[in-house]
Amino acid sequence: MSVPLILASSSRSRRIMLESAGVTFGVTVPAIDEAILKSVLLDSGSDGHRIAEELAVAKTLSVSRRHPGCLVLGADQVLVCEGRMFSKSDTEAEARETLNALCGREHQLITAAIIARDEMALWRHTETAVLTMRKFSAAFLDQYLTAEIPEILGSIGCYHIEGRGAQLFSEVAGDQFCIRGLPLIPVLSALRGFGVIAA
Amino acid sequence: MSVPLILASSSRSRRIMLESAGVTFGVTVPAIDEAILKSVLLDSGSDGHRIAEELAVAKTLSVSRRHPGCLVLGADQVLVCEGRMFSKSDTEAEARETLNALCGREHQLITAAIIARDEMALWRHTETAVLTMRKFSAAFLDQYLTAEIPEILGSIGCYHIEGRGAQLFSEVAGDQFCIRGLPLIPVLSALRGFGVIAA
Repeated sequence: MSVPLILASSSRSRRIMLESAGVTFGVTVPAIDEAILKSVLLDSGSDGHRIAEELAVAKTLSVSRRHPGCLVLGADQVLVCEGRMFSKSDTEAEARETLNALCGREHQLITAAIIARDEMALWRHTETAVLTMRKFSAAFLDQYLTAEIPEILGSIGCYHIEGRGAQLFSEVAGDQFCIRGLPLIPVLSALRGFGVIAA
Repeated sequence: MSVPLILASSSRSRRIMLESAGVTFGVTVPAIDEAILKSVLLDSGSDGHRIAEELAVAKTLSVSRRHPGCLVLGADQVLVCEGRMFSKSDTEAEARETLNALCGREHQLITAAIIARDEMALWRHTETAVLTMRKFSAAFLDQYLTAEIPEILGSIGCYHIEGRGAQLFSEVAGDQFCIRGLPLIPVLSALRGFGVIAA
């Protein structure tokens, strides 16, 4: 029998990727205040890379504590555009503000993942994708928001690249699994190493 | 009113990508004998790149002929591993042979797309992704084929990277839309240029 795997995430996208890849797992939503932790990290001068990793660790360990003996996979994603770090949008107005800020510019999407057992990190992976949002029209943005709200509010950049979000970009460099929130190829390789899936 | 778009393809994956991106289009399956054309091109010494482009052109123009005035988008994909070009598998035995040949090796997936109107190519794009299949076990392959047959028979490499196919790879370099059969980001950019979708 293999060790049970728990995905420490409330993200629908992460759950779908892992399920689609044929992995069996449970889901536990981490009980940490991401906003507070993020602001502490920002105050201490952490960069996007560091913040994504620290948040992934905090979420994963908080779930690991509740599932002794299990493997726990957690992840976090940070979006940086010209030095500015973005947070998730809660409303259509915030999504519009984010998309207008990203319009015509390049941004980095930093995705960090870790696997822990008994509150100890056993594996880590962080990867950055670089995406360029084209200069879309106001009419396009209206049409986009009408079609995509509320689904995109859970996504930091207000897009699902595998859906209508593809229309936002002139260039996409990086792994699409990472863009969707999980470095799936390295994660699967780690899960084989831990005996969770067949090698 | 924008010009109607027709997707010249029998591929479920291409249809889903384009639909998910929010594009409106019709579908017409090309009526050409790909196998004959491919063998003629191979006999004349064409490489994978050239074959993907010629097949994409032939499929697209055959559909364009039946839809005067419409924009027609077609694509083709060729898989090359150590000089050998692969064809689609029709049976589980053929899929097993293909996957065993790719196991532990790097292969190129060449994806060509064109847009035509009135039997004239107006736009072309060809892109190559490089994928490395890990050395999976015979037990894994049995499990994989049980889960994925018949769905993967339509795919030249016998995998859907967005599904359980992700478990086959140790490394994936290239655009995931291309791997799934369509260079979606450049296609969307062309469709904006032709006024099919909002800019």
